Amino acid sequence: MTVLPLRPDLHGCEPYGAPELDVPVRLNVNENPYAPSPAVVADIAAAAGRAAAGLNRYPDRDFPDLRAALADYLAAESGVRLDWQQIWAANGSNEVMTHVLQAFGGPGRTCLSFTPTYSMYPEYARDTFTRYVTGPRREDFTVDVDAVAAAIAREHPAVVILASPNNPTGTALPLDDVVAILEAARGQGPVDAAAGDDGATDCVVVIDEAYAEFRRPGVPSALELLERTDGDGAPRYPHLAVTRTMSKAFGMAGLRLGYLAACQQLVDALRIVRLPYHLSALTQAAALAALDHRDELMSQVASLRDERDRLVSWLRAQGWTAYDSDSNFVLFGPFTDRRAVWQGLLDRGVLIRVVGPEGYLRVCVGTPAEMADFRTALTAVTSDGPHQPDRNGQNLEENPA
Amino acid sequence: MTVLPLRPDLHGCEPYGAPELDVPVRLNVNENPYAPSPAVVADIAAAAGRAAAGLNRYPDRDFPDLRAALADYLAAESGVRLDWQQIWAANGSNEVMTHVLQAFGGPGRTCLSFTPTYSMYPEYARDTFTRYVTGPRREDFTVDVDAVAAAIAREHPAVVILASPNNPTGTALPLDDVVAILEAARGQGPVDAAAGDDGATDCVVVIDEAYAEFRRPGVPSALELLERTDGDGAPRYPHLAVTRTMSKAFGMAGLRLGYLAACQQLVDALRIVRLPYHLSALTQAAALAALDHRDELMSQVASLRDERDRLVSWLRAQGWTAYDSDSNFVLFGPFTDRRAVWQGLLDRGVLIRVVGPEGYLRVCVGTPAEMADFRTALTAVTSDGPHQPDRNGQNLEENPA
Repeated sequence: MTVLPLRPDLHGCEPYGAPELDVPVRLNVNENPYAPSPAVVADIAAAAGRAAAGLNRYPDRDFPDLRAALADYLAAESGVRLDWQQIWAANGSNEVMTHVLQAFGGPGRTCLSFTPTYSMYPEYARDTFTRYVTGPRREDFTVDVDAVAAAIAREHPAVVILASPNNPTGTALPLDDVVAILEAARGQGPVDAAAGDDGATDCVVVIDEAYAEFRRPGVPSALELLERTDGDGAPRYPHLAVTRTMSKAFGMAGLRLGYLAACQQLVDALRIVRLPYHLSALTQAAALAALDHRDELMSQVASLRDERDRLVSWLRAQGWTAYDSDSNFVLFGPFTDRRAVWQGLLDRGVLIRVVGPEGYLRVCVGTPAEMADFRTALTAVTSDGPHQPDRNGQNLEENPA
Repeated sequence: MTVLPLRPDLHGCEPYGAPELDVPVRLNVNENPYAPSPAVVADIAAAAGRAAAGLNRYPDRDFPDLRAALADYLAAESGVRLDWQQIWAANGSNEVMTHVLQAFGGPGRTCLSFTPTYSMYPEYARDTFTRYVTGPRREDFTVDVDAVAAAIAREHPAVVILASPNNPTGTALPLDDVVAILEAARGQGPVDAAAGDDGATDCVVVIDEAYAEFRRPGVPSALELLERTDGDGAPRYPHLAVTRTMSKAFGMAGLRLGYLAACQQLVDALRIVRLPYHLSALTQAAALAALDHRDELMSQVASLRDERDRLVSWLRAQGWTAYDSDSNFVLFGPFTDRRAVWQGLLDRGVLIRVVGPEGYLRVCVGTPAEMADFRTALTAVTSDGPHQPDRNGQNLEENPA
């Protein structure tokens, strides 16, 4: 009989993740429903073959080619031109975020976010021994900048994470709000005797733009702020990091390639804590091959946006609340028993997600055929009686965070 | 002017890694010198193509197929049959080791090892905020089991890591020593009030067998201890974990696939702290394809072992000390100025590693042609005068850990 020395705070914890169920219509983890084209598949296979010929050797630790290709992609997507040294990447943006908290967080340090938001943030904090503190978003899930500034001044967080568009609500942050938060973060980080005369540091502000490509016309990306400089040419917001991923709009969830844009000083701090050779030669080669097809892979984004807007309109026409979304998913409800609705949809072959505020469900945008199946199933499930919010009900999220 | 809130203990740290230099003969990072055959390359490319067709979807989070294939490989390699639930894997054994320390280490907890040993261990501890404590190995780099038991009783470590064969010395641990250490670890882990009546826990003992396939005939693997059971059928050493990698003997360093074998209870603890979807669909597919060719990929191991033994004999014939090795590298010396010898070899197109005890160098086993180049270069570099140890000299390791 052994007792393993599991960290006390992990007792009773379950591995994170939505149920992996084999059903016809999967709208639960915000994937792009369109598989890569035969041309993309062929190029990835060819790139993997070329990389495989040298697999006995370790991969390039600093992967400048891939970082340059990601910078090119961002320039094409957002009009913001960054140097390759301003880009970092890892096996999914969750590893990127872990690097941020390993470099700047840790025991005695705080990570601040605003809920409801992405349910992995507290896991990143837990796994890096960083204190995780949240404040509330407004009723409509927008961020109250004054409340953020007050929380920063009170908590002196090392890292502030704000998702834009937010998951699971779809809410984007106005650029003016990001600027106000960056200004509020100056000098308000943890005191670090090694850092300077007065020990003052800036909070690192991470804008998680995993779903940014789906933003509506006119909605900006925080990447634009990385271009701004002070009079002496120094970056105006060196404490800003913007995270992105190839998993969502780019349709490469299985590749596991998340990335980050920031000033080089911030990126170089992440390089200290990365495990050497963290990105495999196959990942580097396949990502480069996929990025070569960016026009094709991004072509579905416009149609997914349209499908999303149609979904919001349809849900509202049925009498449900559906929140404005700049993402590829929509939060809708309220339901007296959201778990029952989720199960009813699953019984009809449609898998969505129980996540977010009590009574609400999140559905991501699939193909037109998948959305038709979703509409049919939801109509059938909800046709047998009223569905109203049950504010006193048990919290039924799979992800208690 | 910003001051980023870098963790105080990271100030002045550099990213880990040996110099990446483009030279004809690379014998510095213990890679397998033989590239995959055209058949292996073709199968990996085909597997990548099949995986690419579904890359818009997230990969399997628990990858049972790959874990089963790794269990099959271990059964073929070591004669030890384990269930797939006893196998864990990640992007390199350095990520596996990080999972171990994230689950069992952390603030207030200790990781114990015995030096000289692998220079990444203190980095794993640093990045998981775990205290890192070392004791010395004997002069011949074997482990003094009584000293290990005393250190365990004194430090109550959550995790003890012992490399076998050890890096950079090549020294394997006798199985009796591993058993004695496992017995000494019972009940000597950190006290955990949540763990049981008296809060006693067992130390997790990790045997790092990254190079195990190169062990000499008759040298056992600690995997054998995972088969042993008590009278009631329970595993006798549930606090034992054995780590392996596809990077070395298997010749797949660029794939980044490290793995671990243990009882299921220990593996399930690692699942709590892994980032979801940490192993990409391409990694899973390529590893499965490579494992299908295990006979071919392992066929070079016997010749690499022979080449290693010839290298040890040749070095000794030249008058140098060369330590017995169960690995694919040899530690040799001593040199008055090892840095000068390293540079002299590099000037002749041969890259080896400055690592380990003062005055010594580590060379890994390449092809017969590469080893001939190494012998020629070393003869030329050392022919111009005596080379004796300089015990008072500056420590010139690239990796100060």
